Amino acid sequence: MGKPNIVILGAGYGGLMTAVKLEKMLPAHKATVTLVNKYDYHYQTTWLHEIAAGTLHHDRARIPVKDVINMEKTRFIVDNVIAIKPDEKTIKLESGELSYDILVIALGVEPATYGIPGLDDYAFTIETVNNARLLKEHLEYNFAKYHHEDEKNKGRLNIVVGGGVSGVEYLGELTNRIPDLCDEYDIHKTMIRVINIEQSSTVLPDFDPQLAKYAMSSLESRGVEFITGARLKECKPDHVIYEKAGKHETIPTYTTVWTGGVRTNSIAVNSGFTHNQGEIDICDDMRVSGFEDVFAIDECTGVTEKESDKLYPLTANMAIQQSDIVVHNVKALIQGEEEFTAYKPKRSGTVVSLGHTDATGTILNNRKLFGWKAVMLKKLIDNYYLLRLGGFNQLMRKGKFNIFY
Amino acid sequence: MGKPNIVILGAGYGGLMTAVKLEKMLPAHKATVTLVNKYDYHYQTTWLHEIAAGTLHHDRARIPVKDVINMEKTRFIVDNVIAIKPDEKTIKLESGELSYDILVIALGVEPATYGIPGLDDYAFTIETVNNARLLKEHLEYNFAKYHHEDEKNKGRLNIVVGGGVSGVEYLGELTNRIPDLCDEYDIHKTMIRVINIEQSSTVLPDFDPQLAKYAMSSLESRGVEFITGARLKECKPDHVIYEKAGKHETIPTYTTVWTGGVRTNSIAVNSGFTHNQGEIDICDDMRVSGFEDVFAIDECTGVTEKESDKLYPLTANMAIQQSDIVVHNVKALIQGEEEFTAYKPKRSGTVVSLGHTDATGTILNNRKLFGWKAVMLKKLIDNYYLLRLGGFNQLMRKGKFNIFY
Repeated sequence: MGKPNIVILGAGYGGLMTAVKLEKMLPAHKATVTLVNKYDYHYQTTWLHEIAAGTLHHDRARIPVKDVINMEKTRFIVDNVIAIKPDEKTIKLESGELSYDILVIALGVEPATYGIPGLDDYAFTIETVNNARLLKEHLEYNFAKYHHEDEKNKGRLNIVVGGGVSGVEYLGELTNRIPDLCDEYDIHKTMIRVINIEQSSTVLPDFDPQLAKYAMSSLESRGVEFITGARLKECKPDHVIYEKAGKHETIPTYTTVWTGGVRTNSIAVNSGFTHNQGEIDICDDMRVSGFEDVFAIDECTGVTEKESDKLYPLTANMAIQQSDIVVHNVKALIQGEEEFTAYKPKRSGTVVSLGHTDATGTILNNRKLFGWKAVMLKKLIDNYYLLRLGGFNQLMRKGKFNIFY
Repeated sequence: MGKPNIVILGAGYGGLMTAVKLEKMLPAHKATVTLVNKYDYHYQTTWLHEIAAGTLHHDRARIPVKDVINMEKTRFIVDNVIAIKPDEKTIKLESGELSYDILVIALGVEPATYGIPGLDDYAFTIETVNNARLLKEHLEYNFAKYHHEDEKNKGRLNIVVGGGVSGVEYLGELTNRIPDLCDEYDIHKTMIRVINIEQSSTVLPDFDPQLAKYAMSSLESRGVEFITGARLKECKPDHVIYEKAGKHETIPTYTTVWTGGVRTNSIAVNSGFTHNQGEIDICDDMRVSGFEDVFAIDECTGVTEKESDKLYPLTANMAIQQSDIVVHNVKALIQGEEEFTAYKPKRSGTVVSLGHTDATGTILNNRKLFGWKAVMLKKLIDNYYLLRLGGFNQLMRKGKFNIFY
């Protein structure tokens, strides 16, 4: 193969970890590695709900790619991917074309709005730093507007959040922030409404019922109103319509936050790979079905648990596990080996944050955690990732060490 | 007269100082004093441009009325004044009526937009805490929006400021803030445009030309573009149109700040008093022409310098001078004295702030000040006011002591 060109698309958890490990595992003369990313920074997706609520500064959640990648070993391009052409082995970028010998697709997900009218145009999402920061500013702007208008508009103080795990995490942070927001803009706490619209009969329907109940109680005690068994029907700039038990109801609000669904990045899906429910079909060795030299990693892929036939939750932890396999198999491919390592997902527990001081989740043996123990575990997981990604330096710079806040 | 009802409308510089001094000068059994204000706080109008730029928190610029007024001596009502009926000696408030024996009108000014289309609806002003805070949020919101939109919109980064002394002071603060804003929202400094549209051939046309030139150089060195000899013609949500030398030009901008004019509060003007160019006519003793028992103070009044026939600049300092006279004459009125003291304005110099580290102005003998000396003088004036208003406590709490920032 000579000196092959390895191209990694995306510097999320999976893509960046792959690049970092390739640097360590592959001698420079064995391959050229190029990393392409939309921004010059990587960001902690799992912290975005904190940025959106305004409880964490966005710079804490992002890491300049140049701080973890050796620019002399790895070529780094900041650009948008327009199309992947696996037949021609090229990538179309906004500013040109790139050819590859081995491709790693790590483009992640984008919000899915399932055709619900108005969500694309008027709802806020929290899947990028830019979106999360805008939501924070939007809320502050509406709180500031409230006392500026002679005719008081309650819609500015109503916040509607739609579904999902990240919705629950956002609610946790938001309710922590609201007392400060009220102080800042001279608004009495009782005038704020935070409403969660959830399709199931409970939040976190895929979790143990005890955990879900704990999460709801914790959030209710901080003023969240839950409307369960309801579906968002339409979103407008100044109100939202939902359906419950066949009846349509309207809530005046300028802030609808859509956290109810994601789908695989559409560029990855529309590149001629076979896919399953929108997720790219991959083999056990993390290669895309039917392609010898294309790997997919991270949220691009759907990994089904064999026993339950359910999709594994897409966690940062899983992306890191996968990057080990991808790096191992990329190396095997370059060296012409016949044996590839298969990816066997290991469940490692999940923790859902409920603001800075509360959380709930399960660990390895399905043991349930509540409150400060879960908060500690969540911080431990985050710090462990930072350590693996950027070593001691990044851990010190961006880690979360205050267990009381 | 028995125990007369004294009603003061407005807790700006003039109204609040009058209330504070009446508390000290009038024994409680001699009169009942009622202070009416729209908010439960007084604010430093002269600091609003800092709030609007985001360089000073709004809580630094406001003082709860209860912190400087003895609530057991003075009755304090938070309400909007709807109308003044001098013939019936009553005040219509939003929540009821109030009768008075002696009235002090200190309702200040409101922005005047001279019928320029769109200014009332789309331009920002900085004459209240709520307006200034909204402008700050608006700018941050637009900077946050910039990277959120795929199609980049330069209008979000263009800021157009129209005329006046407070426009110049806002420009000074804003240019100090812009480097931080750029950092915060990942925007390169060269992409920001700050444009001042000024009707005259220079900013600060009523000041000494040397001062005006100094102010322009200082602001230009920080990136402000001046368009002089131009008039705002129309303001829309996403652009502004001005006329220069007979030609109409358009600037795309979401942020037009109108600082080009104020007029006396319209409720005060429309209450049957005679007025001159919109300012209530007052006698030398600060009483409204033709009314024995109505005083007007502060920006409600127009005081003309006899030698030059020019209006005096409306400064906080002048309001404080006036309050001395008002308090003295209110006391004389209650005691049935025939002699009233006449108000003789004393020029005491004016300083125009150009951001935290620069200023220019004149002092008593028309000596000109530039740079840090002017900054110091400005802070000294502010601190002196705080000391007179709320004593040592307020000075310590809200004063400006850092001469380097």
